[in-house]
Amino acid sequence: MRGILERRYSILDLISFSSQVFSAIGFSEEDTQLAAKCLTRADLRGIDSHGIARLSGYVRLFHAGRLNPRPEMKFTSTFPAVAVLDADQSIGFISASVAMNHCIEMAKISGCGMVAVRNSNHFGIAGQYALMAAEKGLAGMAFTNASPLVAPTNSSARMLGTNPIAAAFPALESRPFVLDMATTTAANGKLEILQRTAQKAPEGWIQDSNGKSSDNPDELKNGGALLPLGGESQNGGHKGYGLGSVVDILSGVFSGANFGPWVPPFVSFLPLPENPVGEGIGHFFIAFRTDAFQPEQVFRQRMEDWMKSMRSASRIGENEVMVPGDPEWEAEDIRMKDGIPVHPKVVEDLRNLAIELKISSTLFE
Amino acid sequence: MRGILERRYSILDLISFSSQVFSAIGFSEEDTQLAAKCLTRADLRGIDSHGIARLSGYVRLFHAGRLNPRPEMKFTSTFPAVAVLDADQSIGFISASVAMNHCIEMAKISGCGMVAVRNSNHFGIAGQYALMAAEKGLAGMAFTNASPLVAPTNSSARMLGTNPIAAAFPALESRPFVLDMATTTAANGKLEILQRTAQKAPEGWIQDSNGKSSDNPDELKNGGALLPLGGESQNGGHKGYGLGSVVDILSGVFSGANFGPWVPPFVSFLPLPENPVGEGIGHFFIAFRTDAFQPEQVFRQRMEDWMKSMRSASRIGENEVMVPGDPEWEAEDIRMKDGIPVHPKVVEDLRNLAIELKISSTLFE
Repeated sequence: MRGILERRYSILDLISFSSQVFSAIGFSEEDTQLAAKCLTRADLRGIDSHGIARLSGYVRLFHAGRLNPRPEMKFTSTFPAVAVLDADQSIGFISASVAMNHCIEMAKISGCGMVAVRNSNHFGIAGQYALMAAEKGLAGMAFTNASPLVAPTNSSARMLGTNPIAAAFPALESRPFVLDMATTTAANGKLEILQRTAQKAPEGWIQDSNGKSSDNPDELKNGGALLPLGGESQNGGHKGYGLGSVVDILSGVFSGANFGPWVPPFVSFLPLPENPVGEGIGHFFIAFRTDAFQPEQVFRQRMEDWMKSMRSASRIGENEVMVPGDPEWEAEDIRMKDGIPVHPKVVEDLRNLAIELKISSTLFE
Repeated sequence: MRGILERRYSILDLISFSSQVFSAIGFSEEDTQLAAKCLTRADLRGIDSHGIARLSGYVRLFHAGRLNPRPEMKFTSTFPAVAVLDADQSIGFISASVAMNHCIEMAKISGCGMVAVRNSNHFGIAGQYALMAAEKGLAGMAFTNASPLVAPTNSSARMLGTNPIAAAFPALESRPFVLDMATTTAANGKLEILQRTAQKAPEGWIQDSNGKSSDNPDELKNGGALLPLGGESQNGGHKGYGLGSVVDILSGVFSGANFGPWVPPFVSFLPLPENPVGEGIGHFFIAFRTDAFQPEQVFRQRMEDWMKSMRSASRIGENEVMVPGDPEWEAEDIRMKDGIPVHPKVVEDLRNLAIELKISSTLFE
């Protein structure tokens, strides 16, 4: 995917261009800044599939009337540590940030807090919302459902999204532990790379439209499905299905959003599912005070010790034993210094977006 | 594993015998009943590896001075919705039940509640504590760490336990959704079956002591390790490692229990790890009110609809598409009616236990 054709941009350039776009479709000044930062955090952390490459997708959702640039979001709360947020078709970046901030506020008083969000749209990388809590010394978790691409064990149908799980914990000297994972064997982004480069997919990644295991990444376009983490049932695929289910239930059933096969697609050219069971897509957030369990410095030291023990575990060959989040922190360091490589196709897409929205930008000079 | 040599016992017989054993080693009347019920719930639900087959193991932990039959457990709580429980070397069945009950009580007032437990012992199947909440109309989650058997991605060392994740949600007509899964590709019990029957293990289950993928289930005895869910990294093994890590951090780092390679072994003949980083093993529990998110009947109906949509998804061949928990509910129905098959080796072990503790039982007539 990397190559000499890829130009590198500074994170500030990407934030600046994204801001121009969000502003052009009517976001408030505050939401513009936040959305641009959340979107490009994916690029900064090395998760190219969820960053600026999706910017035009959000604009198309806006044009399709499915994304509200001026949402009036409403919390409903009947207990001190739990709330539901109706996101009023907000872009996920805003509703997720607002929801996690509310979790943190509730956790300050009660020790923990949970928010389920309905009527929202995609929120980029889940890890950043978990990280919001960790950066304030709390533990954070984030979940979202997504449009159906994944087949349950024994089924040939797409019933669940790639439904990610994210969890973040603060440490002492190290930057926070951040797990951010799709509940599928392979992320969709990895399949796109295989499709682009005409490579075969490893066993356990996908099945064809009849539910037969396949190594052809194009089967996904032909009605096939991604396999849940674990792949075939013999290798624990039913566990990945179970995890994806928990994420869908938290995000969709609890919030009043759509769930399962009714979760609306990210791409605006696909029709919305008929007979929806809720509103928009759903997220779920949890924050809890680490100092409600251990004195803050004790907790941070224990977390540091945990990380140290994993990082110093005996290696197979030369590869480092890493802690979840380490690869993304490395990517942030490198990309802050050297810039962010953007695929020529994405640059072309952004150039067209700029023309369409009458934006002038130094990005394409 | 099933065969004509296996005798079947009623659940009441197994509870009765377990009660005699717990009583004989000094449990209070109340704890005896609860521990016997929690232990044998595994047998009832078809998870033979975690039930009565482990009874003598708990007795050996008692003899080794590592299990306190009369624990004085203490909650520490500085916030309304969070607490830490020092289990005073209780058997896990008691501390886990007490902790989940406390989560439920906190959730009644705050909407959600969390308890981290330290200084505990193994608690059998995680699912039953999540189910405690679901049977009262709440959502429940349960986690525990366990002695190290699992290698992180890129490591040849055993650093984490099979660290299960359990989650349960109530529905309307269906019995609750119950996910209860080890964060490894294969449960240890499945490997024991392969060892007993001299079968090879599928790829992605285990590695040898050098970290090389192996199909020989005996490699685990020779210093090898179980692989995290996903298996090799190409198939998402780093995600299973990440999930097992989250479970270890919640259960061990938050509670003040041991974590990672310091978690004490279940078997009493293995020495305790040197330089412990905490007390005993650790658990973590969460309960939250479903009616804090949706009116109770609405939530239950949505959950029922979710289950129905998965169960009616198009099948590959004849196998049913199930919801997590369905196989265990089926096992409960069958075993309540037909009794519970117990392996002859386990019966022999129980007979020896009865002799040792001077228990007379009709179990062996």
